[in-house]
Amino acid sequence: MKLSPLQKARYEYTPKLPQMLRNGISEISVSEGKDTKSVADCEKIQALFPNTYGKKEITFQKGQNTSEAKKQIVGVILSGGQAPGGHNVICGLYDALKSTNPENELFGFKNGPSGLIDDDFIVFTDEYIDQYRNTGGFDIIGSGRTKLETNEQFAIVAEVCKKHGITAVVIIGGDDSNTNAAVLAEYFAAHNTGVQVIGCPKTIDGDLKNEDIECSFGFDTATKTYSELIGNIQRDANSAKKYWHFIKVMGRSASHVALECALETQPNICLISEEVAAKKMSLSQIADYIADSVEKRSNNGMNFGVAIIPEGVVEFVPEFSVLIAEINELLAGKKADEFNALPSWADKYTFIEKGLTKESMDVFKILPQTIQQQLFLDRDPHGNVQVSLIESEKLFSALVADKLAERKKNGTFNGKFSALHHFFGYEGRCAFPSNFDADYCYSLGYNAFMLIQYGYNGYLSKISNLSKPATEWVAGGMPITKMMNIERRHGEDKPVIKKALVELDGKPFKFFEANRDTWAVETAYVYPGAIQYYGPSDVCDLTTRTLALEKE
Amino acid sequence: MKLSPLQKARYEYTPKLPQMLRNGISEISVSEGKDTKSVADCEKIQALFPNTYGKKEITFQKGQNTSEAKKQIVGVILSGGQAPGGHNVICGLYDALKSTNPENELFGFKNGPSGLIDDDFIVFTDEYIDQYRNTGGFDIIGSGRTKLETNEQFAIVAEVCKKHGITAVVIIGGDDSNTNAAVLAEYFAAHNTGVQVIGCPKTIDGDLKNEDIECSFGFDTATKTYSELIGNIQRDANSAKKYWHFIKVMGRSASHVALECALETQPNICLISEEVAAKKMSLSQIADYIADSVEKRSNNGMNFGVAIIPEGVVEFVPEFSVLIAEINELLAGKKADEFNALPSWADKYTFIEKGLTKESMDVFKILPQTIQQQLFLDRDPHGNVQVSLIESEKLFSALVADKLAERKKNGTFNGKFSALHHFFGYEGRCAFPSNFDADYCYSLGYNAFMLIQYGYNGYLSKISNLSKPATEWVAGGMPITKMMNIERRHGEDKPVIKKALVELDGKPFKFFEANRDTWAVETAYVYPGAIQYYGPSDVCDLTTRTLALEKE
Repeated sequence: MKLSPLQKARYEYTPKLPQMLRNGISEISVSEGKDTKSVADCEKIQALFPNTYGKKEITFQKGQNTSEAKKQIVGVILSGGQAPGGHNVICGLYDALKSTNPENELFGFKNGPSGLIDDDFIVFTDEYIDQYRNTGGFDIIGSGRTKLETNEQFAIVAEVCKKHGITAVVIIGGDDSNTNAAVLAEYFAAHNTGVQVIGCPKTIDGDLKNEDIECSFGFDTATKTYSELIGNIQRDANSAKKYWHFIKVMGRSASHVALECALETQPNICLISEEVAAKKMSLSQIADYIADSVEKRSNNGMNFGVAIIPEGVVEFVPEFSVLIAEINELLAGKKADEFNALPSWADKYTFIEKGLTKESMDVFKILPQTIQQQLFLDRDPHGNVQVSLIESEKLFSALVADKLAERKKNGTFNGKFSALHHFFGYEGRCAFPSNFDADYCYSLGYNAFMLIQYGYNGYLSKISNLSKPATEWVAGGMPITKMMNIERRHGEDKPVIKKALVELDGKPFKFFEANRDTWAVETAYVYPGAIQYYGPSDVCDLTTRTLALEKE
Repeated sequence: MKLSPLQKARYEYTPKLPQMLRNGISEISVSEGKDTKSVADCEKIQALFPNTYGKKEITFQKGQNTSEAKKQIVGVILSGGQAPGGHNVICGLYDALKSTNPENELFGFKNGPSGLIDDDFIVFTDEYIDQYRNTGGFDIIGSGRTKLETNEQFAIVAEVCKKHGITAVVIIGGDDSNTNAAVLAEYFAAHNTGVQVIGCPKTIDGDLKNEDIECSFGFDTATKTYSELIGNIQRDANSAKKYWHFIKVMGRSASHVALECALETQPNICLISEEVAAKKMSLSQIADYIADSVEKRSNNGMNFGVAIIPEGVVEFVPEFSVLIAEINELLAGKKADEFNALPSWADKYTFIEKGLTKESMDVFKILPQTIQQQLFLDRDPHGNVQVSLIESEKLFSALVADKLAERKKNGTFNGKFSALHHFFGYEGRCAFPSNFDADYCYSLGYNAFMLIQYGYNGYLSKISNLSKPATEWVAGGMPITKMMNIERRHGEDKPVIKKALVELDGKPFKFFEANRDTWAVETAYVYPGAIQYYGPSDVCDLTTRTLALEKE
């Protein structure tokens, strides 16, 4: 197997642990804190988690290790979308487990949660693990999106664990996967299986965070990768001086990624989905907002710019959500056949015009034809519009072009507008983890094993004080139930970890808000460049602006 | 102005010069080599360049500087598309010029060649230059695509030079710009202006190279940036195991970028335009070639992969070029009005069916409808098809999907095929130059001034032995006419620098050819990661695989 020079060099990197975990396994003791309660709906959550609710938060500290000396066989899975650093979680887990007792074993269940059901696994060895240290990707065991949520599945998992003598399962995943981890932990406790469950907070989207979890892993590396590219494009725009670049970045539910990239690169425009929803903005208002920047810059001789668009933004535009709902209704069941049988787009358009309310038709009319057709022609197996396929970067540039054409006619705009489009997502999910993510993930995994060793169940591995150097980080654990509330999902009340959206009164957004009017008109671009793993600490150890502002 | 941590750190970087330029200006002497002749059409080129043809190649060496002590006022322009390192060419030029005589001045003409015509410039100072050291982009003075090629333009340029007392002009550009530099040099010589012209070889496309110029600057950084992203996507593909990624990379005329990225990352598929042309491949053959890889991998349980598509490939497919020519003919002049007046796509399709030859209609039929429509609906101001807008990454994935659907029907393919698409170009043209490009460009600029100082005209700044460490690089100059031949352009015989396409019997392609069958079936991905500016020399000072293989 051929390895890149960087991959070989990264094998030599030693991730930094929090000081309190650096004294050797025998010197790690537990300090128990207060009993916890869930962030909301306490009684309901407690009723659903009678065995695992309300446990104490804990912190590790230097001191005599008092954990029970038993052989541990731990299983680990990677769940959901890739995030840089997943390999290091497993490496940290493995190293702590083997340092505690060389007889301990780590099983890696393959291709996500389904590996636990299918009993498909490998047993890690030094040689195998060493190939994945400080590398990106989830290819060490693969990932998958199967959800572990039914009692039938849990029973199978319990059987698999029993068969191999597994004492604990570590689930590396996002908010949904960790919600499921809590439910599995409760199941294991209720059925006296003796198997523990520990979660680790993963997602490049950055929407798994709260007062305990300062950030999810992968967010740092992914946003640095996107910011590298956005910065490069900004420099190109500022050199060629002839294009507006519309750049969509991943993040369907929350706009943390877009916001962090904006804080790193200072583009002319960055939409924030949460703000669009809060202000109930229309497509036309958003287009006018962007067109204002184009016009002002053009008046200053700058017919170029950069706009960042969060992937999920159209779903946050109220009138657009209504339109989608109406289209889904209009084409439900047999009505789709009638529609599909219409011979030409003109006939179909007439059908649509008849079927939509006037309000929705007004929205539909201003969409570019490619988007109009996509809404009606590309539907998912249930016949619904596939919102995730909408090229919102192209949608907004087309709407802006229409606005500018109108302004030109009215004599208020006299410049040029030529747009290019980009989408960054897959480019950043498997990058070599930044030093921050490499350190954070290794610590999460190492710490997860200490939680196992001390007998905790239904806990999330927690490393905090992350805006400080690693030596000052704090290692501990938090009952997952503490982060849960009840939400309506698919018509049912479900206990779930609350998704963290961008807070419009939070410091990162406030900073952005205070500066964006200047950025919209001036060329205040910052060029972050590629992630550096070596060199000055300022360059290679810094974490996100979001975290720095939140902890200011 | 806010600067990123990396930008601040890069200001501190000292580019490495070839050993022979490290002894101080007073210790640089010239060694003249042999008279030169053009690579072809010698007599014609000589007749066109009577004053600048046949000059000697020269090399700098350590020794007493014997150049004339006169005040130099040098003008510099950036021409054409951005390439990482352009700022360093100017910094090297500036440093050599000021070290030779603090009275010397460097004028930067703004926004490309038009700056020389419009007399729009800045005079560089230490303070201004220092902001751009080791940074990407061409924003130091901007770039542009105006061509300097007519005697009227040259006369204006001569006037501008005379007005400011300019003694030499440095043109940083690609093959066309350097061709124009040679013509300008000849004009200056013929008119006894006393103004010299020196070119510097720029282009991320890598198609300005020959026995003298080992590579153009920017190619190293741009391909490293694309390879970073391709490697990240490969790792994602290998983790999620469910997508085929079709990745288009810049390079319309030549496939050096695609080939270098393939050598760096070992994808399953990489098309090479020059091979497609040489083998006269049809769209269907190319689609079958890719589908074979999809099928074989699927049979081994791998329903994922990565294919690199060079931007210009469709123009190299003979049947597609014929189709484009027929469409341009079909819609020439008033015929376009008739076509545009047709109410529906179905009517238009009938019109097309009647107008194209059977062979071209067969090609047209297999295209996805979006591409069909784009060919007829998006035309340039002259009414021609805009080949550069064709999303060839989507074209090929659609053709492959058709092939696989057919194979499924025939029972030979039983897997899944789900495609995602990417295009990388603007992402790499303005990255912070790699150490290689930072060093190479600084040396090119420094060296360009030494050529000026020694009175050369119509020369290209030449730094060679580039596959070795910078200390072993060789600095010198080469008459641009040496690289020229006569080519037919727009119905006229023109003296031009021969564009370097990928040579199918060259070592880089041979290496690729020897390995690609394995890569097509196995997962032999290499993950280069982000460009590193610090760290082990193996990681941060290596140049391209192309150069390494060519110099093997």
